[in-house]
Amino acid sequence: MDKDLSLYDVRTDLALEARELAVRGQPSADIPGVWSETDSREGITVTRMEIQTDQAARQIGKMIGHYVTLEVPDMRQGDTTLQDQVATTFAKEFEAFLKRIGITAKSSVLIVGLGNSNVTPDALGPIVIDNIMVTRHFFELMPDQVSPGYRPVSAVAPGVLGTTGIESSDIVQGIVDKAKPELIIAIDALAAKSLERVNTTIQIADTGIHPGSGIGNKRKGLTKDILGVPCIGIGVPTVVYASTIVNNTMDLVFEHMKRHTDNTDPLFGVFGKMDETERLQLVKEVLNPLGHDLLVTPKEIDKFIEDIANVIASGLNAALHEAVDKDNVAAYTH
Amino acid sequence: MDKDLSLYDVRTDLALEARELAVRGQPSADIPGVWSETDSREGITVTRMEIQTDQAARQIGKMIGHYVTLEVPDMRQGDTTLQDQVATTFAKEFEAFLKRIGITAKSSVLIVGLGNSNVTPDALGPIVIDNIMVTRHFFELMPDQVSPGYRPVSAVAPGVLGTTGIESSDIVQGIVDKAKPELIIAIDALAAKSLERVNTTIQIADTGIHPGSGIGNKRKGLTKDILGVPCIGIGVPTVVYASTIVNNTMDLVFEHMKRHTDNTDPLFGVFGKMDETERLQLVKEVLNPLGHDLLVTPKEIDKFIEDIANVIASGLNAALHEAVDKDNVAAYTH
Amino acid sequence: MDKDLSLYDVRTDLALEARELAVRGQPSADIPGVWSETDSREGITVTRMEIQTDQAARQIGKMIGHYVTLEVPDMRQGDTTLQDQVATTFAKEFEAFLKRIGITAKSSVLIVGLGNSNVTPDALGPIVIDNIMVTRHFFELMPDQVSPGYRPVSAVAPGVLGTTGIESSDIVQGIVDKAKPELIIAIDALAAKSLERVNTTIQIADTGIHPGSGIGNKRKGLTKDILGVPCIGIGVPTVVYASTIVNNTMDLVFEHMKRHTDNTDPLFGVFGKMDETERLQLVKEVLNPLGHDLLVTPKEIDKFIEDIANVIASGLNAALHEAVDKDNVAAYTH
Amino acid sequence: MDKDLSLYDVRTDLALEARELAVRGQPSADIPGVWSETDSREGITVTRMEIQTDQAARQIGKMIGHYVTLEVPDMRQGDTTLQDQVATTFAKEFEAFLKRIGITAKSSVLIVGLGNSNVTPDALGPIVIDNIMVTRHFFELMPDQVSPGYRPVSAVAPGVLGTTGIESSDIVQGIVDKAKPELIIAIDALAAKSLERVNTTIQIADTGIHPGSGIGNKRKGLTKDILGVPCIGIGVPTVVYASTIVNNTMDLVFEHMKRHTDNTDPLFGVFGKMDETERLQLVKEVLNPLGHDLLVTPKEIDKFIEDIANVIASGLNAALHEAVDKDNVAAYTH
Repeated sequence: MDKDLSLYDVRTDLALEARELAVRGQPSADIPGVWSETDSREGITVTRMEIQTDQAARQIGKMIGHYVTLEVPDMRQGDTTLQDQVATTFAKEFEAFLKRIGITAKSSVLIVGLGNSNVTPDALGPIVIDNIMVTRHFFELMPDQVSPGYRPVSAVAPGVLGTTGIESSDIVQGIVDKAKPELIIAIDALAAKSLERVNTTIQIADTGIHPGSGIGNKRKGLTKDILGVPCIGIGVPTVVYASTIVNNTMDLVFEHMKRHTDNTDPLFGVFGKMDETERLQLVKEVLNPLGHDLLVTPKEIDKFIEDIANVIASGLNAALHEAVDKDNVAAYTH
Repeated sequence: MDKDLSLYDVRTDLALEARELAVRGQPSADIPGVWSETDSREGITVTRMEIQTDQAARQIGKMIGHYVTLEVPDMRQGDTTLQDQVATTFAKEFEAFLKRIGITAKSSVLIVGLGNSNVTPDALGPIVIDNIMVTRHFFELMPDQVSPGYRPVSAVAPGVLGTTGIESSDIVQGIVDKAKPELIIAIDALAAKSLERVNTTIQIADTGIHPGSGIGNKRKGLTKDILGVPCIGIGVPTVVYASTIVNNTMDLVFEHMKRHTDNTDPLFGVFGKMDETERLQLVKEVLNPLGHDLLVTPKEIDKFIEDIANVIASGLNAALHEAVDKDNVAAYTH
Repeated sequence: MDKDLSLYDVRTDLALEARELAVRGQPSADIPGVWSETDSREGITVTRMEIQTDQAARQIGKMIGHYVTLEVPDMRQGDTTLQDQVATTFAKEFEAFLKRIGITAKSSVLIVGLGNSNVTPDALGPIVIDNIMVTRHFFELMPDQVSPGYRPVSAVAPGVLGTTGIESSDIVQGIVDKAKPELIIAIDALAAKSLERVNTTIQIADTGIHPGSGIGNKRKGLTKDILGVPCIGIGVPTVVYASTIVNNTMDLVFEHMKRHTDNTDPLFGVFGKMDETERLQLVKEVLNPLGHDLLVTPKEIDKFIEDIANVIASGLNAALHEAVDKDNVAAYTH
Repeated sequence: MDKDLSLYDVRTDLALEARELAVRGQPSADIPGVWSETDSREGITVTRMEIQTDQAARQIGKMIGHYVTLEVPDMRQGDTTLQDQVATTFAKEFEAFLKRIGITAKSSVLIVGLGNSNVTPDALGPIVIDNIMVTRHFFELMPDQVSPGYRPVSAVAPGVLGTTGIESSDIVQGIVDKAKPELIIAIDALAAKSLERVNTTIQIADTGIHPGSGIGNKRKGLTKDILGVPCIGIGVPTVVYASTIVNNTMDLVFEHMKRHTDNTDPLFGVFGKMDETERLQLVKEVLNPLGHDLLVTPKEIDKFIEDIANVIASGLNAALHEAVDKDNVAAYTH
């Protein structure tokens, strides 16, 4: 029980981080039933991963499925050339991802932008939706006139429970029943496990969106089981708990201090010897009663969210329509 | 056929205007099957109307049902005292309207804000939604803890066909199937038949929202027939066709000139003798090929929309929850 | 006096229209002291004009100076390829304009975005400012590190009298005294003389901004006389009076009717025989007491303003810095 | 030198915190030359402080002058009743503050909203400006018609160096030279020394705005010395450094652990024995090279900023004009 709670505390929405946690101190190749490969190029690291067995899923704490992660440490620098490269990389990875999981170029798609458009770090989904090239209505109203190279794409931002009074998953299910897409793509803002992940990492997963993930504490998920059609989740960490910042930083401090001394015991005492989970528990115990364990986000969040939303929207527009030039994705989004 | 087209051209979303058109030159009391009464107070004119028979409905061109119209000529002056009075009047009229059509104080309500939040004069619905006091989730998640005097209210802005790729009525139907409200209230921006109506008139009708009404050229409506639950439409004219402005103004010019001469024939010639419908047809014939028959809106539309959206949201919050003070409605909306 | 008033009514902020009014019924070449040339290409008409003599200035009602007008009738179609072409054309014309009036590539520039950022059709200036590549602070703080091909550019949006309580020209003068630019470029939204000009026309003029022009009824202008440095005004019509729409349309109606009959007298009577000025006066006399002579703007103004602001900002960024590629101006603005 | 740097690290923009730092471990009354009194009522703590001597100023590290601080720990709860009380308290305190420093009810005032309107946590100043009741132009244009009980108030948001290319203090000086106010009130967002201060504390000080304070790293201040007229600074902490969160939390952790053990030495080791300044230095040393010492802000910053901006604007509107009812300040702001 206690164990579970502490496990919950270090849980992460990113499969990449979950695997890292699972293999603490041993090379990642050691987990049977997990395939992965990593490409690094021009400041963008792409990790493709597949969790293939129940046992691997249990060990990592993530569902069987396909995962792709883009890590772009310099994403927050506001470099538009880099952003275009990320959008192009995202488009290519997403297109390959669709093929890998068996989605054809004709399948109709509903894109769902989860989150609250009035809360900047939670507005990623709605802002992506604003920039999606929507085509479904042309297929419905004038199917003969649609140029080749496009598929039916629709896009909705269902809002959040606190502002609609309805679970967003219920809203999405209702819309799915009417619009009958063959694939759902749901975009969601996540809580990061470290400050450097905030607005620098994008995860694509064919396991959908799960309750408790994301910022908005959903109680129901968006998955193939629930919706009846495949659901790809796209997640970006945009906030981080104050307690997480403290814990990560203390790790760094301890490592820093270790590098400068031989006998570390007297340096950090009991606190330094706690494992990460215990320490995080302690930090939370201290902050929570004071109401200080806030979710925080970088000061420049408005710009960061706009940039990464443009990357995702540009990438999706290029990946979903063959007619869109994958090498110049930004031209199709404003 | 030709006749119908021209009729279509002068069609209006406001029952008040439809009746005026139907009784040109004769007192309104003359239409059998139409009941109405009018109150004027402190710059606010309230007209309650009921179309009771099929024949009356055909004659007026509006469905059998209940209609309430608030006309506030000074609404655009930015007078906050007047706005509070309008909100209070709206709340009282709306509450009485609910009783008249048999909606109880317990019925759960879904409020639908139609329109495009990125097009200011079409953003009325979405802005109202942003200011609605949403309670349904409390009834769902902790029914025992909801204070008396509230009912379950949910609120969604389904977007428009051009940005979602899905008919807004399909989205609403999907949500209704899941959320199962007992009443829908749909807010929509309308095209006015005269510039002075823009942002000065609010219509409440239990006949719902009909295809072709509103700014967004819906192809399907939101009515009890379609949704299976009663649907109240709240409409506000926020735009007007250039051709309508021209035609209304020429009417005024002709009346003005008539007052200053005996023999009017030579004054306006053939043009002056056309009836309103013919003249509007002519104006449209001239403007359309040039692409000049634009829908236009006053320069100050941002402020006007915000003001009237606040009036409606405040009014609804007060009307829907008995616990909300009807005499100080503005306190509950920001 | 009466004459002057009516003249005032047809006055226009566009030199192009002023010349048209001045040469009613005769070819434009007939005005001595006015030089002009026109290029039309790919949907963009560029007219370069110079008013060279006092007499020509008096005849046209515009000051001696250089004027360039871009007319893009399809500007409102939302075609991004066309928009890029307009931005490129604007950049090239503006660069040539600077040379023609003797501004060097090194001169420091202050760009002033006039207008009210909370009133969409008046927000052109402030939105342009948001997208200007600002460099002056680099020249001030680290002059040795600025790459060649750039000049010092600063940018301010001084607000409007109604929201600051200070004349915008006073604010600009105060800033000029401190920042000491060698050139002012002021962007302003104008009232159009016809609906088709709204958001389709851009005027560049080295005569600055004059009292009474623009939407905001300035009482003081921004000119070289007042500010002590050259001032280029960039104006875009974004609103039009209801009365102007009526008058323009009646002109079109009369022309339309004339084409279909021989004897026009009985067609329009006295009204048809009025000249444009008299008719506009009459229309204003009718509308004004009712408060109906509103400034109106197209329903889609949010998008139109954003598009044309991006064109101007992209164009200025490219024209002002030699290092910016004039053939791909959009890449430098988001 | 080293000492100074570390001092700099713990420097704070709040006089309240500066005094706390100066009297570590001794009652505040112990600083000669500092007068202060504190009122606590309904969740609002008001501290009025005066630094009266050079020696006290040096000891505390704040200039001689008057300071008032409002601390409202529950300010982030979104309670509108509390917000109205804070606005009323602010209005009364500000009015008393003006009297204390000798500003008459007739003095003309320029309100300056510092900060970047596109960066939410830095947009406090510009948002306040948007809600200020501006009157100066009425005094200029129709002095005879201004009702009694008002004074001339103007309001500007000068932008930030990065977006204008001009120091905001230069812009303000230029405007002051033209508008000639008798008092400046400058509103600025600050970096907090602890997460709980963010959007819960408001400081009023007659010492103006100083270089290096605020979020935007100003290089020149806004003070009476520079501007030639008195300058009151109103500051609200809206962001906090990641390193500050870590350090504050470690303090709490150490206190927490101390309460549960006798012999604390082995608990924290060397790290625990460092003083606050050393520890913060260490944390910064660790985070800075990684680019992780970001300024962060709570996830809900959009709403927090709007709420506190409304409090300040309402409070200023009531405090500056005798005709405005101090007991219902919210009625005058939207």
